[in-house]
Amino acid sequence: MRTIVGVMGGAIASETTLAVAEELGRGIAERGWVLLTGGRNAGIMAAASRGAAGVGGLVVGVLPGESPAGAAPHVDIAICTGMGDARNVINVLSSHVVVALPGGAGTLSEIALALKAGRTVIALGFPLGSAFSAYHERGQLLDAVTVPETLGLIAGALGSMP
Amino acid sequence: MRTIVGVMGGAIASETTLAVAEELGRGIAERGWVLLTGGRNAGIMAAASRGAAGVGGLVVGVLPGESPAGAAPHVDIAICTGMGDARNVINVLSSHVVVALPGGAGTLSEIALALKAGRTVIALGFPLGSAFSAYHERGQLLDAVTVPETLGLIAGALGSMP
Amino acid sequence: MRTIVGVMGGAIASETTLAVAEELGRGIAERGWVLLTGGRNAGIMAAASRGAAGVGGLVVGVLPGESPAGAAPHVDIAICTGMGDARNVINVLSSHVVVALPGGAGTLSEIALALKAGRTVIALGFPLGSAFSAYHERGQLLDAVTVPETLGLIAGALGSMP
Amino acid sequence: MRTIVGVMGGAIASETTLAVAEELGRGIAERGWVLLTGGRNAGIMAAASRGAAGVGGLVVGVLPGESPAGAAPHVDIAICTGMGDARNVINVLSSHVVVALPGGAGTLSEIALALKAGRTVIALGFPLGSAFSAYHERGQLLDAVTVPETLGLIAGALGSMP
Repeated sequence: MRTIVGVMGGAIASETTLAVAEELGRGIAERGWVLLTGGRNAGIMAAASRGAAGVGGLVVGVLPGESPAGAAPHVDIAICTGMGDARNVINVLSSHVVVALPGGAGTLSEIALALKAGRTVIALGFPLGSAFSAYHERGQLLDAVTVPETLGLIAGALGSMP
Repeated sequence: MRTIVGVMGGAIASETTLAVAEELGRGIAERGWVLLTGGRNAGIMAAASRGAAGVGGLVVGVLPGESPAGAAPHVDIAICTGMGDARNVINVLSSHVVVALPGGAGTLSEIALALKAGRTVIALGFPLGSAFSAYHERGQLLDAVTVPETLGLIAGALGSMP
Repeated sequence: MRTIVGVMGGAIASETTLAVAEELGRGIAERGWVLLTGGRNAGIMAAASRGAAGVGGLVVGVLPGESPAGAAPHVDIAICTGMGDARNVINVLSSHVVVALPGGAGTLSEIALALKAGRTVIALGFPLGSAFSAYHERGQLLDAVTVPETLGLIAGALGSMP
Repeated sequence: MRTIVGVMGGAIASETTLAVAEELGRGIAERGWVLLTGGRNAGIMAAASRGAAGVGGLVVGVLPGESPAGAAPHVDIAICTGMGDARNVINVLSSHVVVALPGGAGTLSEIALALKAGRTVIALGFPLGSAFSAYHERGQLLDAVTVPETLGLIAGALGSMP
C-alpha cells in the first residue's frame, strides 16, 4: 500500500504560497509518496499537484462534485464524492500525514478533522493561534517554515506510525 | 418549516459549561426553535438536550453511528448517519444558526464547516484566538458571554436571514 | 425517542400512486409515528408529507442539497446533507422501518441500502422481481398491496424490533 | 487523468465467480485502466485487486472504515471514508464504467446508485430480473457472460462518453 501525504490549503493563495505548495508537491513525489489534495483546479490544490506531476509523482484528487469537471489538470486519480465539504473528512482519513498551508474555513476544518482523527498535522507557514494550542502541546500539530523542514517532519511522523 | 438552532461543543466539559449548555437548550426551546446537536449522550450534546426537553422542546440528534444506540436520552428525532465526523457537515448545514460552546477538534471542525457554509456562528464562552479572525471581522463569527446575550444574537441572525 | 417510518419512492409517480402515498403518510401520522422522506417537493416525498401534515403529524425531510430550498412545503424538520444520493443511506439508517413505493434507481438504492442495514422493507405496490428474492425469502422484504395492510406490517415489524 | 473502472460484487462469492473477478481485474489492468473496488479483503474486491496487481495495474480501494485496516493486500491507494455504505456512492461516482458481479444488497445498491448517477453498468453473470428492466431497455444496463465480452463493453462505453 502506498503512503499518502495530504496537502490542504486555500483555493486562493498568494504567489509566494503557491510556489511553496508546488515545491512541497515536488518534494513529496520525489520521496515516493502519493500526493492527495482536494482536487480542484485552484490555489494550493492545483499548485501542489503541478509540483508532484512535474517529477512523475502520483496525484489523487478527492473532489467535492459528482464528476471530474473542475479537477486540477495534474490529478491522476479523481475520486468524485458528490459530498461537498464532507469530502474534507475523506481527505484527512486517507492521508497518513496532513500538511496545511494557509487557507480559510475549509482548510481550518481539515486541520480540525485531521486532529480529531488522530493524524499528525504540519502547519506550513500557517500560524493558528490559540484555538489549536492543546494539539500543539501534545505534539500532534507541528509548525514548519520551510519545505525541507516540512518534508523532514513528514518523514518523522511516518516513521513513528503504528 | 421549523427554525433549527444547532448547539455544538465538547463531549467532555466542565460543570459550569454543562450548566450553560442546559440553560441554552432551555432558552432555545422556550423561543419555539428546534434544538439540533450531535446527538450523543455526552457533554454539551446531552446537557443542551436535557434543557430543551425540560420545557417541552423538540430535540434533533444527528448521530455519527448507524443506530440510535448511544443517543442522549432527551433526543426526540435521532438521525443516524453512519458517517462518523462527516456528520458534522450535516449538523451545520441543517442549522439556521450555530452556537459553539468550548470543545476540542470536533467542535472546531463544526465552527469551520459552518463558516464555510455561510452560517452565522456564535461562540459562547469559547475564545478562538486568531485562527478565525477574518470571520470575526466580517461579523459572521460572534462572541457571547451569557446565554441571554446568545439568544439575542440568535434572534438577530435569524431576523437578517434571506 | 420517537419512532420514525421512512417512505421512499419516485420523484415522478402516477396520480394513483401519489394518492396511495398521501394515504400512507396520513396513516403513519395517525399512529403517532414520525414520517421521514427524502424531503424534496416532488412525487412520493411531497405526497406522503402532505398526508402526514394534514393530520398534524411530524415530517422529517432528509435533503440532498445544502439548503432547504426545494423542500416539500409540508416538511417540518429539514435535514440538509449536501451529499446528493449519499443521503439515501441516512434516510434508511434513520428509519425504524422503510416503505418503498414505485420509483426508479434512487428508490431501488434505498431498498438495497435498507436491506444491507438490516431494516425491514415493505414494498407497497412495487413488484421487485428476482433481484431481491433472497430478502423476500428471509422475511426482511415484504410485499403489500394496500395502505391498511402496510400499516399493519409496519406495526408488526416495530413490535419485533430488538 | 486516468480512466477508472469500478468492479463491484459480493464479499462472499463462489470459487468460479472469484476466478472471473480475478480475470476481469487482470484484463482491466492490461488495458491500462485503473481498477477501483470497495477495497475490503474479501470476495470480489480482493480477487479483482489480485488480478490487476498481478500484471502491474494500479488498484484503488474505497474503504468503509476510518483506516486502511481490513484493506485487500493488493490495494495500492486506500481511500478511507469512515462512512460505511455511503462510500458506495463514491465508488460509482469515481468510476467511468461500473461492472457488477454477483452480490447481495450492497452490490445492488451500487448498481442502483451507478444508474442514478448516469453511469453505464455491466452485469457480469448477474441476472437482475425485472427490477432494473427500464435501464436494460435504454441500454444503460448491459448483460455480459464472459470477461472478454465485458472488456469489450467497457471499451465501448468509454468510447461513447461525452
